[in-house]
Amino acid sequence: MIYDTVIVGKGPAGVSAAIYLARANLRVLVIGKGYGALEGASVIENYYGFSEPIDARILHENGMKQAKRLGAEILEDEVIDISQNYEDGSFSVSTPNEKFLAKSVLLATGKARKNLKIPGFMDFLGKGISFCAICDGFFFKGKRIGVIGSGDYAAHEAQELVRFSKDITIFTNGKEAESDKFPPEVKFVKDKILKISGEDKVEKIETELNNYQIDGIFVAEGTAGAGDFALKLGIVTKDDNILVDSGYMTNIPGIFAAGDCIGGLLQIAKAVSDGANVSISIKSYLKNKNGKGK
Amino acid sequence: MIYDTVIVGKGPAGVSAAIYLARANLRVLVIGKGYGALEGASVIENYYGFSEPIDARILHENGMKQAKRLGAEILEDEVIDISQNYEDGSFSVSTPNEKFLAKSVLLATGKARKNLKIPGFMDFLGKGISFCAICDGFFFKGKRIGVIGSGDYAAHEAQELVRFSKDITIFTNGKEAESDKFPPEVKFVKDKILKISGEDKVEKIETELNNYQIDGIFVAEGTAGAGDFALKLGIVTKDDNILVDSGYMTNIPGIFAAGDCIGGLLQIAKAVSDGANVSISIKSYLKNKNGKGK
Repeated sequence: MIYDTVIVGKGPAGVSAAIYLARANLRVLVIGKGYGALEGASVIENYYGFSEPIDARILHENGMKQAKRLGAEILEDEVIDISQNYEDGSFSVSTPNEKFLAKSVLLATGKARKNLKIPGFMDFLGKGISFCAICDGFFFKGKRIGVIGSGDYAAHEAQELVRFSKDITIFTNGKEAESDKFPPEVKFVKDKILKISGEDKVEKIETELNNYQIDGIFVAEGTAGAGDFALKLGIVTKDDNILVDSGYMTNIPGIFAAGDCIGGLLQIAKAVSDGANVSISIKSYLKNKNGKGK
Repeated sequence: MIYDTVIVGKGPAGVSAAIYLARANLRVLVIGKGYGALEGASVIENYYGFSEPIDARILHENGMKQAKRLGAEILEDEVIDISQNYEDGSFSVSTPNEKFLAKSVLLATGKARKNLKIPGFMDFLGKGISFCAICDGFFFKGKRIGVIGSGDYAAHEAQELVRFSKDITIFTNGKEAESDKFPPEVKFVKDKILKISGEDKVEKIETELNNYQIDGIFVAEGTAGAGDFALKLGIVTKDDNILVDSGYMTNIPGIFAAGDCIGGLLQIAKAVSDGANVSISIKSYLKNKNGKGK
């Protein structure tokens, strides 16, 4: 079974696209955790059509009910990987427990990654700090690797990294390990990170209880965002925004992006409109693709 | 008293812009008649945020209440003229009974004019048929002029035309004259128009009861649309859409356009997003303008 579109993110952009695509009788799956762009906004009063301020969570629930009523499937889960199957050009979208096949993918994960607020973090970006195990794991072959994170996404990155090194430490930064998918060979450091230090490049992670010699750090906190997938898939970004053409398609045919992750006005109105617009473009992409018998 | 922005049209684009501008503490007036883009749509199910299909009129009412609650003024009336005051660059926006001053104008009148479904109409477009008395009245100096229309907009066009000719006939095309603003010197023909005819250019209007020799026809049916204002003000259009820059400004500084009248996806989602986007641009325009002490 293959979906016409798997949408990553269930904020206003993703769900608006799902509404349009489901209404066009396409098979759509939305996967997301949390509230997307509605996270943080408690009460909304500038989105057209509501005479009284509306609670962000109610708007979010309304949108999901609306999409489901029209035939979209919605899965409350975290996407930890997206990859392309080169035989047929289809895509695999993975959650910690399942893998879904799709003819097209829409990234609607909201505004990209938050940088870590740890002293030294900004100084060593690109100097031993990476956001993508598949991209950069090779550079740390046989070295001491730290992964900052505690959930499924961190576990997934660690699984990639054990192919390159057996010396992997998960720094949960004060949290408990929240995934059962960590490879057995990793060590855990669970106290808070105080500082990342080194001369020209990362050399050490200092925590409340100890110091750890480290050659490279992979950041995998929270949920993977559009920026993380972009890195892995080779999608072109600019200023932390995913670059799309006038049809909201990225440089990889079949992968689209909409909402806050492509920049522009960070407003529900704009995200919803992106969702409507990208659906037209996805429909036309799928039509051409099917037309060519692929 | 001068408004920061007068918005022409109270569909989703105009009212969404009003919501944002009013929230930014600007003095905003929305003038419009009817339902804008919501006219015709009876039930809406693809605009994000409503778990059940919503009646177009209710959405419209909700939007207006929302804008009013945030401080926008809304006037249920028809805009019949927009002109620029060259001394200070401000704009005058006229209804049949009032004139409002504005620092900026937003055209959000929805999709442009409907062409008349009268045999011969398309054949003589540009060959004696005009949509703008101010633009083309001069060419019919002392000639026999027909105005097709019955309301305030037709009356306003007739007022312009009496400066050029005393031989003006209002063809109401089966309707009663619905304005008390027609100049006293005009004649009325109230039966249905059957055909517009001529050799190379308009020569005759044939109605159910009679034929009338006519040199030029001005179409002013219904409410003036963005296309009509564009013509009068010299705003550049393309394929019946108003051309705007990335900040939704037309070629005339201070006049903006949003929603269906600028083309693109003719959907509520897109109109609402246009409204949000144009408001940012208007705010920045007004700030620069005030900064320069104008």
